[in-house]
Amino acid sequence: MTEVNRVWRLHKRPVGELTDDVLSFAEEAIPAPADGECLFRLNYLSLDPTNRVWMSDIDQYMPPVELGAPMRGVVCGTVVESRSPAFKVGDVVSGLGVWADYQVGSPATVRPMGPTGPIPIVDAFGTFAVVGPTAYFGLLDLGEPKPGETVVVSAAAGAVGSIVGQIAKLKGCRAVGIAGSDEKCRWLVDELGFDAAINYRTEDLPAALARTCPQGIDVYFDNVGGSILDACLKRMNLNGRIPTCGLISSYNATAPVPGPYNYDMMLMQRLKIQGFIVMDYANRYPEAIQALAGWMAAGKIKVRQDVVDGLEHALTALKKLFTGANTGKLMIRVKDV
Amino acid sequence: MTEVNRVWRLHKRPVGELTDDVLSFAEEAIPAPADGECLFRLNYLSLDPTNRVWMSDIDQYMPPVELGAPMRGVVCGTVVESRSPAFKVGDVVSGLGVWADYQVGSPATVRPMGPTGPIPIVDAFGTFAVVGPTAYFGLLDLGEPKPGETVVVSAAAGAVGSIVGQIAKLKGCRAVGIAGSDEKCRWLVDELGFDAAINYRTEDLPAALARTCPQGIDVYFDNVGGSILDACLKRMNLNGRIPTCGLISSYNATAPVPGPYNYDMMLMQRLKIQGFIVMDYANRYPEAIQALAGWMAAGKIKVRQDVVDGLEHALTALKKLFTGANTGKLMIRVKDV
Repeated sequence: MTEVNRVWRLHKRPVGELTDDVLSFAEEAIPAPADGECLFRLNYLSLDPTNRVWMSDIDQYMPPVELGAPMRGVVCGTVVESRSPAFKVGDVVSGLGVWADYQVGSPATVRPMGPTGPIPIVDAFGTFAVVGPTAYFGLLDLGEPKPGETVVVSAAAGAVGSIVGQIAKLKGCRAVGIAGSDEKCRWLVDELGFDAAINYRTEDLPAALARTCPQGIDVYFDNVGGSILDACLKRMNLNGRIPTCGLISSYNATAPVPGPYNYDMMLMQRLKIQGFIVMDYANRYPEAIQALAGWMAAGKIKVRQDVVDGLEHALTALKKLFTGANTGKLMIRVKDV
Repeated sequence: MTEVNRVWRLHKRPVGELTDDVLSFAEEAIPAPADGECLFRLNYLSLDPTNRVWMSDIDQYMPPVELGAPMRGVVCGTVVESRSPAFKVGDVVSGLGVWADYQVGSPATVRPMGPTGPIPIVDAFGTFAVVGPTAYFGLLDLGEPKPGETVVVSAAAGAVGSIVGQIAKLKGCRAVGIAGSDEKCRWLVDELGFDAAINYRTEDLPAALARTCPQGIDVYFDNVGGSILDACLKRMNLNGRIPTCGLISSYNATAPVPGPYNYDMMLMQRLKIQGFIVMDYANRYPEAIQALAGWMAAGKIKVRQDVVDGLEHALTALKKLFTGANTGKLMIRVKDV
């Protein structure tokens, strides 16, 4: 256990693609927990597209990270000192923290993960902390898929998308994924059981959607926005639903981004487009975790982690989310539990 | 009673603004009803923005009018011959018909209006046939306004918008209208009881929305899309709703129209954007009509008709909807009931 505390701080707000100077990385003193807080050592840091949103000062769902402040992230760590009855030394906690080896937590920001049964901590954190509940609530609560319907998901080989498609299959739907490489597409169909997958980089998307969704699209789970959203809008069925989890295609934009050109399909087909943030479902997390854990233990949902070792590689690794270079849940491992 | 039957037919699909050559207008033979049909003489023809959609061949919620076919419209007429037990001579019927003096109807397209109590037929048709139920279901079913919330409506001096704002007031909301002239704005505030109105042609819309909606916007009832939608998106509150009734700003477009630049607010503020067509609520019309008739009889909802005499003026009158030249429900009067 190192006594060094390395901290990533927001140095400047990104413009366009992420550059190495948006964050600083330096050694600092280990912070001291106040009454009601604990000190924990980082095990895993989740890297998510929304990190890019937090760095910027666009209108968003939480205050942006302030310039000079530690970078915000979803974290998993082990308690090394506690001044709160909510934590005891050795507890593995997860929740909202910062990109740093050592940090303080409170019951408002982190909670003990508790036993994860046969599921390794890294998989439990990778799936249950953010992406599993995101897929679960976005698809089931907002998408309302019915057996026999067609569900399309973008960024399908990503952590959220891969779970969305698998839940869609469990609910009796046709699942079609859109991803950025043939290897990813094969993984979706051969390993995860998607009915079809489309490589949006090499295929004509409207034609591919027509071929793979002969009955149209009832639910489009949107992770990306942009031209993929536009193509899906054109094939939506009457009363279709578009739960919107992310708009990653625009996060690196340097100029105003037009909304979908086929926005009028929302009116003509009476679609419901609805944005959500998984934190809104915080009090229903146990429901999602119980379901996901059951499916995972039964082998009905497979998850893949994309684990990068070393906190010092966090910014470089984060960039992979915006180039399509990763498959599965991206996270930094500082030290296994 | 004239024996002439004048018929408007779709001559060519409009490109951009409506021109005089998109429809033809000629005298034809009076059609003969088949078994199960009636023949009725036109009294009033409703003119609606959606007429422009029907003329085009964009993806839409009904088949477009075919080239050469009579122009489709919402009509009110008097039965002159019946070959159906559903109609008797003298019945005043309303529903979906064509722009023609004489036309056949069936129980699938029109139905007798029945007694309208103290409400004149022209007001009953003008309000109950399309725009009243549109305002009622769009605002209440999809907008779900709660007392104390702020409801903003665009095209507020239009037939639907003016009713939306008045229902919002009846439900205990703050009602803010966006319209295209100072005269319209005065009418909304002084006559209809809106809390505020904004002239989008002369005022800075973001500043005006900030001033008139100090608590943000909870429901934006969208009739127009475009830059007004964009400005409203920027002020939407968490979990706001955007029932979408029309996108008139794009109906005359000749090039692909970008969706809202602030589409990302849908995600950040977890908004629900939902399109609807009032025909979807056909089996719940009696609920809306009963409520609206009660409010109108009690003087709580005021309606204004913009009546143009003469079927020959239908196309010229329709253009007014796209220039903001009308206030209230636009219709053609051929012959009062």
